[in-house]
Amino acid sequence: MANEHILRAFDRDLEAVQAMIMRMGGLVETALADAARALESRDEVLADQVRANDAAIDLLEEQVNTECARLIALRAPMGTDLRTVLSVMKIASNLERCGDYAKNLAKRSKLLADLAPLPEAHGSLKRMSRQVSLLLKDALDAFIARDAGLAAEVRLRDHEVDQMYNAIFRELLTHMLEDSRKITPAMQLHFIAKNIERVGDHATTIAEQVIYMTTGQLPGDARPKVDAVLGQGGQG
Amino acid sequence: MANEHILRAFDRDLEAVQAMIMRMGGLVETALADAARALESRDEVLADQVRANDAAIDLLEEQVNTECARLIALRAPMGTDLRTVLSVMKIASNLERCGDYAKNLAKRSKLLADLAPLPEAHGSLKRMSRQVSLLLKDALDAFIARDAGLAAEVRLRDHEVDQMYNAIFRELLTHMLEDSRKITPAMQLHFIAKNIERVGDHATTIAEQVIYMTTGQLPGDARPKVDAVLGQGGQG
Repeated sequence: MANEHILRAFDRDLEAVQAMIMRMGGLVETALADAARALESRDEVLADQVRANDAAIDLLEEQVNTECARLIALRAPMGTDLRTVLSVMKIASNLERCGDYAKNLAKRSKLLADLAPLPEAHGSLKRMSRQVSLLLKDALDAFIARDAGLAAEVRLRDHEVDQMYNAIFRELLTHMLEDSRKITPAMQLHFIAKNIERVGDHATTIAEQVIYMTTGQLPGDARPKVDAVLGQGGQG
Repeated sequence: MANEHILRAFDRDLEAVQAMIMRMGGLVETALADAARALESRDEVLADQVRANDAAIDLLEEQVNTECARLIALRAPMGTDLRTVLSVMKIASNLERCGDYAKNLAKRSKLLADLAPLPEAHGSLKRMSRQVSLLLKDALDAFIARDAGLAAEVRLRDHEVDQMYNAIFRELLTHMLEDSRKITPAMQLHFIAKNIERVGDHATTIAEQVIYMTTGQLPGDARPKVDAVLGQGGQG
């Protein structure tokens, strides 16, 4: 990158698309952090901002797709280059979904405002949310650095997120069984937990695309899955 | 299609990929129907079959992606052709997710086997599942016929699925509030309802890709969304 003149036209175009991906990633990370904050502090104004900002993420995905289509048509990439462009489109699509989840978290925080709080569950959710944000950040770092090792680590760490989700599910179930007044807020917190867990799944899919880009092979379905007796992680 | 000799090489290749998509669609429809049947009759053998058959759907998605990448590299499609190939990949990715949901439904039916049944909720779930299967079928028919009108109709009908989901959510909540012994089975049925609702979302995404392929524009976010006071449809 020291000498821009020796970069191929394809690489220049790809860098522009990668910059869009990183901008998307930044917006999604902010949205997730803000949604978590809005949830904790029951800040409806912040929740509204998260919802409004999702449009910018959607627009960036469209721009990535347009730019990738242009790149394919213009540069006719083959082999690794083509694989990279297709992976970039998949990564954009996964980031867009993460943005949707952040928007949904923000919607939920408005619903929760009128319900009794369940302080212990909120603590667990906050830890899970922090863990997932870190996963997403590392998945995107792995993408930029083409680091298949870091990507493989992200896949493994999503296992821990699934375990955190299972623990929260059991915790919420216990609350509901103990006190029927907690059923409604616990159901809302369960939605929230599930949304956060899904962001972890998308971070994993991004990591898998990085492995595909760098090795040419999607990792097999060796991805660890936890099935608790109740409340199973993953695509449930 | 009467005279194969006048088909362009691109069209021939595309037809082969479309045949894969339809095979995927058929497998997903079967998986969803079998998962619903396994759930109703608590048939664990059938549930195991659904789980095992998901590998074939995953494999087809990989084949579609490989074939599309080959098609792009070999034929260098532009304009509408390129848009079509990219949409086909998105459709395959959405079908693969639907397969995952069917697999998850099958897993759930095994968990439910030991829990008290909630007959009314089962009836509602069955209706919702039938509606979603029909949506998926119509979305794929719209794809094959390049029928933007049918695709637009699928988007609207997903609105009804969201409403069905909201009704089921409220129904389950009522059960839980009435009788704490129903909390655990109701939570499992809620997972199931959410999974089915998500298949509807994916059918909608497929319909949106059909609109993109035929008109060059993704429909705006005019997609109707129902937010019930509790339990909102869509990406919750």
